Amino acid sequence: MFISETNIRVRYGETDQMGYVYYGNYALYYEVGRVEALRKLGMSYFELEEFGVMMPVVKMECNYVKAAKYDDLLTVKVIIDKMPGIRFHFYYEISNASGVLINKGETTLVFIDMKTNKVCKCPQVLEKKMEPFFTNG
Amino acid sequence: MFISETNIRVRYGETDQMGYVYYGNYALYYEVGRVEALRKLGMSYFELEEFGVMMPVVKMECNYVKAAKYDDLLTVKVIIDKMPGIRFHFYYEISNASGVLINKGETTLVFIDMKTNKVCKCPQVLEKKMEPFFTNG
Amino acid sequence: MFISETNIRVRYGETDQMGYVYYGNYALYYEVGRVEALRKLGMSYFELEEFGVMMPVVKMECNYVKAAKYDDLLTVKVIIDKMPGIRFHFYYEISNASGVLINKGETTLVFIDMKTNKVCKCPQVLEKKMEPFFTNG
Amino acid sequence: MFISETNIRVRYGETDQMGYVYYGNYALYYEVGRVEALRKLGMSYFELEEFGVMMPVVKMECNYVKAAKYDDLLTVKVIIDKMPGIRFHFYYEISNASGVLINKGETTLVFIDMKTNKVCKCPQVLEKKMEPFFTNG
Repeated sequence: MFISETNIRVRYGETDQMGYVYYGNYALYYEVGRVEALRKLGMSYFELEEFGVMMPVVKMECNYVKAAKYDDLLTVKVIIDKMPGIRFHFYYEISNASGVLINKGETTLVFIDMKTNKVCKCPQVLEKKMEPFFTNG
Repeated sequence: MFISETNIRVRYGETDQMGYVYYGNYALYYEVGRVEALRKLGMSYFELEEFGVMMPVVKMECNYVKAAKYDDLLTVKVIIDKMPGIRFHFYYEISNASGVLINKGETTLVFIDMKTNKVCKCPQVLEKKMEPFFTNG
Repeated sequence: MFISETNIRVRYGETDQMGYVYYGNYALYYEVGRVEALRKLGMSYFELEEFGVMMPVVKMECNYVKAAKYDDLLTVKVIIDKMPGIRFHFYYEISNASGVLINKGETTLVFIDMKTNKVCKCPQVLEKKMEPFFTNG
Repeated sequence: MFISETNIRVRYGETDQMGYVYYGNYALYYEVGRVEALRKLGMSYFELEEFGVMMPVVKMECNYVKAAKYDDLLTVKVIIDKMPGIRFHFYYEISNASGVLINKGETTLVFIDMKTNKVCKCPQVLEKKMEPFFTNG
């Protein structure tokens, strides 16, 4: 299991006229959390694309628990609970500075070989970075 | 059952460097489809808020089937399969101009009384507009 | 001179907690107006990129005259007052359904040859579409 | 004179299919820089609105010098060169991690009394925070 936490400050442009973060913007927060999780694993998503592999999202689920407000300092907790195969699952828990849970969600991404534009397995270079967190004993 | 279809042209600013629509922007497309469905029912979401009721999203699910591209003319099909109670479900199917299914999803919204900031039932004014589509015989 | 008008409905996700359209979103409206202006000239921006030329913005100026609100049906008037050379100027006037001027702006774009990544002249194919609107007598 | 610098990491959702930051997203970066400048002065924009004063943008100018790319760590330098009266000017210089200037711009904001919805002078509470940086001798 690998857990990563990243802080995000809510921007004015991310709120809507309800005075809360617009529901579509959580996808951006998930992205930031996910990318910083990969960076902590030792591989930036930028490098992955340079390497010829991209990771489009094929499924997202968002649960809006409480409203996030302008200028809130959110914590995006990202949980990777198993090694990726062809698919890569991420779980997200977003809470505000008072520790109140704001949002829970998950995404499934796939690896795409940018040369063939076909689904491929998790690149070895990423696999190696992740293994230490997922091997027992 | 009530079905509504709305066209949306993909904007350049909605794509990302993969050359496809950014996965977070489908929430905007769902919103447009949902709002136009309500308008066709005879009630704009704008009026609903004027009336003192807002409808935040509490759950969203998105399935990314194929990539949508810049300048694609998408059709957002919105399906309401039952009368809303405290919750209001919408189903979405987005396809491109060739009829290829791009995205499937659903959202659950709740009605909030803006005076008390508490969950409330579907306002009668909206209920009356919807009944003709959901009563049999 | 070439003038084009396009309608845009303000989305909820484009407002901010002031209850108005977020100031950064006018760039999206300019884009939609500009792209539809080109389409009316007989050439989509999509085709232009297929053709190997892209048009990044090098300068933008926005004047926020009145607030645009959620669900407003805006008219984006785009004015091209001279043939493009290396640079391509667009003027914008956005008004709401009551005819009230909301926003005035302008952008300067350049043509980039996507093979060399260098600035180039306006492609002949576009020049030919535009000439009828800019020649006298 | 007051100068503030803030770092922003470019998000994937902020790029477009050219592979660069979409031109409309710089307004968000200006906002983040401006808000952090105010925070360093000792007053968050959030507090200002709580206090009953909002600051809509009435004019923006953006100069796109070089492209910013995905995952770039940008520095937004904000320069306030004089005390605000009814208007509040901000200058921006955005550069990437190699120190290359990416974007230059400026915005003019006004103070609005949220009770009357009319333009007002800079609130004393903010004026006091700013004075030490603008008085000589």
